[in-house]
Amino acid sequence: MSNVKKWSAEFLGTFWLTLGGCGSAVLAAAFPQVGIGLLGVSLAFGLTVLTGAYALGPISGGHFNPAVSIGLVVGKRFSAAELPGYIASQVLGAIAAAAVLFLIVSGKAGFTGVGGFASNGYGSNSPGGFSMVSVLVCEVVMTAIFLIVILGATSKRAAGGFGGLAIGLCLTLIHLVSIPVSNTSVNPARSTGPALFAQTGAMGDLWLFWVAPIVGAILGAVIYNALLDND
Amino acid sequence: MSNVKKWSAEFLGTFWLTLGGCGSAVLAAAFPQVGIGLLGVSLAFGLTVLTGAYALGPISGGHFNPAVSIGLVVGKRFSAAELPGYIASQVLGAIAAAAVLFLIVSGKAGFTGVGGFASNGYGSNSPGGFSMVSVLVCEVVMTAIFLIVILGATSKRAAGGFGGLAIGLCLTLIHLVSIPVSNTSVNPARSTGPALFAQTGAMGDLWLFWVAPIVGAILGAVIYNALLDND
Amino acid sequence: MSNVKKWSAEFLGTFWLTLGGCGSAVLAAAFPQVGIGLLGVSLAFGLTVLTGAYALGPISGGHFNPAVSIGLVVGKRFSAAELPGYIASQVLGAIAAAAVLFLIVSGKAGFTGVGGFASNGYGSNSPGGFSMVSVLVCEVVMTAIFLIVILGATSKRAAGGFGGLAIGLCLTLIHLVSIPVSNTSVNPARSTGPALFAQTGAMGDLWLFWVAPIVGAILGAVIYNALLDND
Amino acid sequence: MSNVKKWSAEFLGTFWLTLGGCGSAVLAAAFPQVGIGLLGVSLAFGLTVLTGAYALGPISGGHFNPAVSIGLVVGKRFSAAELPGYIASQVLGAIAAAAVLFLIVSGKAGFTGVGGFASNGYGSNSPGGFSMVSVLVCEVVMTAIFLIVILGATSKRAAGGFGGLAIGLCLTLIHLVSIPVSNTSVNPARSTGPALFAQTGAMGDLWLFWVAPIVGAILGAVIYNALLDND
Repeated sequence: MSNVKKWSAEFLGTFWLTLGGCGSAVLAAAFPQVGIGLLGVSLAFGLTVLTGAYALGPISGGHFNPAVSIGLVVGKRFSAAELPGYIASQVLGAIAAAAVLFLIVSGKAGFTGVGGFASNGYGSNSPGGFSMVSVLVCEVVMTAIFLIVILGATSKRAAGGFGGLAIGLCLTLIHLVSIPVSNTSVNPARSTGPALFAQTGAMGDLWLFWVAPIVGAILGAVIYNALLDND
Repeated sequence: MSNVKKWSAEFLGTFWLTLGGCGSAVLAAAFPQVGIGLLGVSLAFGLTVLTGAYALGPISGGHFNPAVSIGLVVGKRFSAAELPGYIASQVLGAIAAAAVLFLIVSGKAGFTGVGGFASNGYGSNSPGGFSMVSVLVCEVVMTAIFLIVILGATSKRAAGGFGGLAIGLCLTLIHLVSIPVSNTSVNPARSTGPALFAQTGAMGDLWLFWVAPIVGAILGAVIYNALLDND
Repeated sequence: MSNVKKWSAEFLGTFWLTLGGCGSAVLAAAFPQVGIGLLGVSLAFGLTVLTGAYALGPISGGHFNPAVSIGLVVGKRFSAAELPGYIASQVLGAIAAAAVLFLIVSGKAGFTGVGGFASNGYGSNSPGGFSMVSVLVCEVVMTAIFLIVILGATSKRAAGGFGGLAIGLCLTLIHLVSIPVSNTSVNPARSTGPALFAQTGAMGDLWLFWVAPIVGAILGAVIYNALLDND
Repeated sequence: MSNVKKWSAEFLGTFWLTLGGCGSAVLAAAFPQVGIGLLGVSLAFGLTVLTGAYALGPISGGHFNPAVSIGLVVGKRFSAAELPGYIASQVLGAIAAAAVLFLIVSGKAGFTGVGGFASNGYGSNSPGGFSMVSVLVCEVVMTAIFLIVILGATSKRAAGGFGGLAIGLCLTLIHLVSIPVSNTSVNPARSTGPALFAQTGAMGDLWLFWVAPIVGAILGAVIYNALLDND
């Protein structure tokens, strides 16, 4: 598979993850009376990965997330040499998605600004007012489990074809737990796109959503290799 | 497979898409206290395609959508000569569904009219008051991604059998994002059926829900062929 | 497979369908603040069939519904000679489930009665006040499509293994549309169990929920054989 | 497979079940305006098992539940000699998850205590005020059906690969019905972790959530072997 194809797939998949997930949050979560709520947003994020995995996974592996790409290097499923191209494609895809979402949102009658724009944050930027330590713990643990599920569900022993289902729905589950804590990142690219447009202090909190998911992904891969698949 | 079988499958599948999706919106979305909301409607639309794909897909391919049929021609998966029969079957199925839904709805105690009847619209007919440009961008982008998912999840490289799952849930995801914007079309047949019965200005907006999904579907197929599967 | 095994599987599967579906409606749908609503009930009914199909389907075929058994006879997938044993097992399973649910519900603090007990009805017993004709049309059409999905998703051409998923989620979809109309039956056994315990006029309406689903199932099987699979 | 791997998988899987399920309940169920409700919590519990089954099932079988391990011994799918290691791993995993959840929750602005902390209970500790008998009946019946689904969906006759889907979604369904009754256990480990931290009388009720799930699991396995798979 050529690099252009892989990078295109990662760009498009991360575009879709950010547009679908953050778009559902910004446009539909709090729609009067019939809004989809955090449950709908959780489902949306998971389905971006589920659909992207089945459609684009055969081309690029379907990471759509710098922390996942790094974790897969640690887990010996991906080459470190490919990281720069993948991560650049992912971040660009997320930024493009945030721009398209901004364009759609700005056409709403009475539009006055995007507010938080589904960005991630801690402390006063946490949806439920959780501290930096809580957010850090939560993002590290969630990303670690995400990597264990990814490595396990795509291992040679796993049931063929079900990886995309399990991994996508794992992201839904992660959101069901942690949106109130951090608005849920576990994905530095997804955090970067909306932060560039948010009118809150999201850019100041962005460092955490690069550090914690990457630390968590490395931790998950180390646990998986040490305890579960150390043949 | 004979044409009668294919056309019957497309008629029935689009009938089910319109009756199930629009029916859930009209009958159940805003039911007092326990209504299914936009999340339930999103799930309903996706499940019409998921169920139709597994049941009728082996007969007709399971398009149920003129934009999808056209996109599949551009993506070299379907013959242009078959378009007229498919599109006619799809539109007739959607109209029949709207008629059956009208019959059911009109038997409700105190019935005084169907109102918007789950039709699509922009500007004052957009659920959230989004402009024509916002609706146009949203419908083009959503249909383009829908086609990329369809082409990818049914490609030779994709995991066998999971196409119907990924494509159906992709339609759920599209609705989770875009119902507030346009009431979500991405399907000219689905837009045409309810528009014929709606008491709002849906017929005046209908042109957009033919143009934007078809443009988006062509765009998605071109992107897929150019960037992802150009062997 | 022995008759005892088949009948046990149909008894248990219909027990689960009725306990899971009606139980979620009675116990959890309108729970204060955090109730699951009609969306949760729709999901519950579908998951009873999905889980029953994968667990018990290999034993009995996983009908759990007299209308489905009759439709499968018309569709030439099941023997008429087996109908009495299957239908008796299904009805007994549904009645047993209603009894267990009554036992659980009656232990709630301040219990004063079960009310409608998730029974089906038309006119004043319809959740949304829909007329007998609306309910009749809705139940016939929904059961007809249910049979088309069942016959299609389990045909030789269909993707292996996905039948239980498509059929279960089809029942979810049917409920997303039609709970407000009839409280959704499409299954005479499911209607019979709760009607025996309901404090409303459900027994008087019960005839319709035998007639309409069976007519719909026959109609669906005839359509499938005539138009879709008439090799 | 070494014992360390199996025990690690059971520890991690039960950690995830408890953190994901109870975490969604504690953090997100009643979030103002957009909370996920009991439907979201039901989905979260089911997805912990679905994801754990695909990721860790190939290593340990994916029990994550002492009642399931015991039921599988009765159902002749698991060795009694392995019970101590499995059950210890499961209980430790659940306790670790409760501790991590406590750490996250305690960082919320204005934190004053964890309250019930998603623990299980009867009588005054039942979410809907259900009696000890109701809770006992409900937990026994739900766990019995859970075992029947587990044994059936993983039998030789069952469709390969779909077991994790059916079993995970069965746990979702069980929660859709029974959260109002007992907050849903069907799993003594899941009950033990949060009870240790709860500020209510959860420890006093804990005995029931060991007895009832284990009795139910044995009952389910006996029914399955006697009626459904007695070749």
